[in-house]
Amino acid sequence: MARVLTGIQSSGRPHLGNILGAIVPAIQLIEQNSKEESFIFIADFHSLTSQKDGAIRKQNTLAVAAAWLAFGLDIEKTVFYRQSRIPEVAELSWYLNCFAPFPMLANAHSFKDKSSRLADVNAGLFTYPVLMAADILLYSANLVPVGKDQLQHLEMARDLASTFNHTLEEEILTLPEARIAEDVMTIPGTDGQKMSKSYQNILDIFLPEKELKKNVNAIITDSTPLEEPKDPDTCTVFKLYSLMASPAQTQALRAQYLAGNFGYGHAKKELLDLLLTKFAAERARFDFFMNHPEEIETRLIAGEEKARRVALPLLNRVREKLGFL
Amino acid sequence: MARVLTGIQSSGRPHLGNILGAIVPAIQLIEQNSKEESFIFIADFHSLTSQKDGAIRKQNTLAVAAAWLAFGLDIEKTVFYRQSRIPEVAELSWYLNCFAPFPMLANAHSFKDKSSRLADVNAGLFTYPVLMAADILLYSANLVPVGKDQLQHLEMARDLASTFNHTLEEEILTLPEARIAEDVMTIPGTDGQKMSKSYQNILDIFLPEKELKKNVNAIITDSTPLEEPKDPDTCTVFKLYSLMASPAQTQALRAQYLAGNFGYGHAKKELLDLLLTKFAAERARFDFFMNHPEEIETRLIAGEEKARRVALPLLNRVREKLGFL
Repeated sequence: MARVLTGIQSSGRPHLGNILGAIVPAIQLIEQNSKEESFIFIADFHSLTSQKDGAIRKQNTLAVAAAWLAFGLDIEKTVFYRQSRIPEVAELSWYLNCFAPFPMLANAHSFKDKSSRLADVNAGLFTYPVLMAADILLYSANLVPVGKDQLQHLEMARDLASTFNHTLEEEILTLPEARIAEDVMTIPGTDGQKMSKSYQNILDIFLPEKELKKNVNAIITDSTPLEEPKDPDTCTVFKLYSLMASPAQTQALRAQYLAGNFGYGHAKKELLDLLLTKFAAERARFDFFMNHPEEIETRLIAGEEKARRVALPLLNRVREKLGFL
Repeated sequence: MARVLTGIQSSGRPHLGNILGAIVPAIQLIEQNSKEESFIFIADFHSLTSQKDGAIRKQNTLAVAAAWLAFGLDIEKTVFYRQSRIPEVAELSWYLNCFAPFPMLANAHSFKDKSSRLADVNAGLFTYPVLMAADILLYSANLVPVGKDQLQHLEMARDLASTFNHTLEEEILTLPEARIAEDVMTIPGTDGQKMSKSYQNILDIFLPEKELKKNVNAIITDSTPLEEPKDPDTCTVFKLYSLMASPAQTQALRAQYLAGNFGYGHAKKELLDLLLTKFAAERARFDFFMNHPEEIETRLIAGEEKARRVALPLLNRVREKLGFL
């Protein structure tokens, strides 16, 4: 199989959307992919487009790393690293900037969306897809799991690699393929929209029980009275529950919704219990790692040494070809 | 006095415009500035926005270095280096991108001008001023000689430094001052417009005599017949001559223009003779260095070691503050 690469930003704490949408599927993919090491990185350079506070970024970077480890990332089969520890990716990003047509970036869906929503529209946000391309191309990755919202960025990475190779008349950069999850899961946030740090609607399953309870109770529901039957298919609590429960559990909860005399408070209690039991081991491991940051550090440093050994030869070929060596 | 920093792109061979407009004034400034080392660099990263051919860039980089050395750059008083050999500038540039408002860059005069003229409008051209800011801020330079066309970029560097310091609540980056040459010289090219590689109107004073003669003969003049008096003040040949000749020489040539029976061919011959005599020593030194690239390399490597010793502590402070250490 191919070299898989994926990254998660450290602009916030890892949330259920990251876990079900990226971490768990990536870990499954890595397990199937026994032939070659996979590359998993924490995109802390990218996080600077939104998060300017260094202390918060450091803490989030640890938490994202702890989440991967808590969910059982096999660091023997993986090159696990912080993007910022191979800062040469920024150099490759400059080179690629010079091959990236301005209109391609200006017309990117994600930039247009963000620049219409955010107050801080900076040049980092604009060149974000170029840094993402550098992340992929620096490691000659050929399979990148992406959500639908990142598919255009992956196509840009392919275009950039292709333009670069064509201009320099040598196949230096590897064109990556997108891997779109077949059963695309959109994880709803507490407000029913897609769960995202930027919508402030996340469910943080690594919170202490009391705070997690508050987080679950914050899920917005409608005002159907306790005694009346409820529609499970329009309820965010039910959707979240059914994403993680067994079919039998889901079936049972559906019956309770339809029967009436079952309030949203009860449903939220079910969801909380499910989170606490289903993720008991992961929550414990997460706490262990957060209390022993040196255990995270050791694992990341080992990954960063491996990452550097892959990145530098490629970068040197690019430098030489462009007349910088 | 202050730490002076200036750079010249290596997108083409060094020409008379670079020499009279940048190299000679910078060398004079460095001579006055005995207290602190000045920073002179070859902006080869920047040259990638227009020049994609690595072999040409390498050759131009050598030629630009040879031009500085030929004109007597004192490498004891100077940190003389290739931008690309301290590639950490690209990393700082990413950080600064995340502090650079998109509209500031989109409204830059130079970008608007270039994006209306050039076929290859790439993201490197767009973020050019951010990389230029990184060049200046990485070395905590506080005095940057600029032409009028670069003044806006220098103001952006100041704004970026100020936003960065303000956001992070610490005076990490030094705000640079512009130094605008008091007697601003605009050097006309062979077509009468400002001399610039991108207008393909340069005068390359390092050419062998025969080719230099052709280059001078290519200067566009009007069709006033030989016998008639000519207006020196509208003639590019006269303008170029007067930029380099002594007042007495200029006065003598003016008289010949006004007297008639003096053709543009004669004027071009005068200009060629002036170039050959005035720059005889520089032309010889340039040839020496181009024939001994190892002599250039040794000097640049020494400068690059010094540059790195200044850049890395600053970069590490920035990394730490942003949570990347």
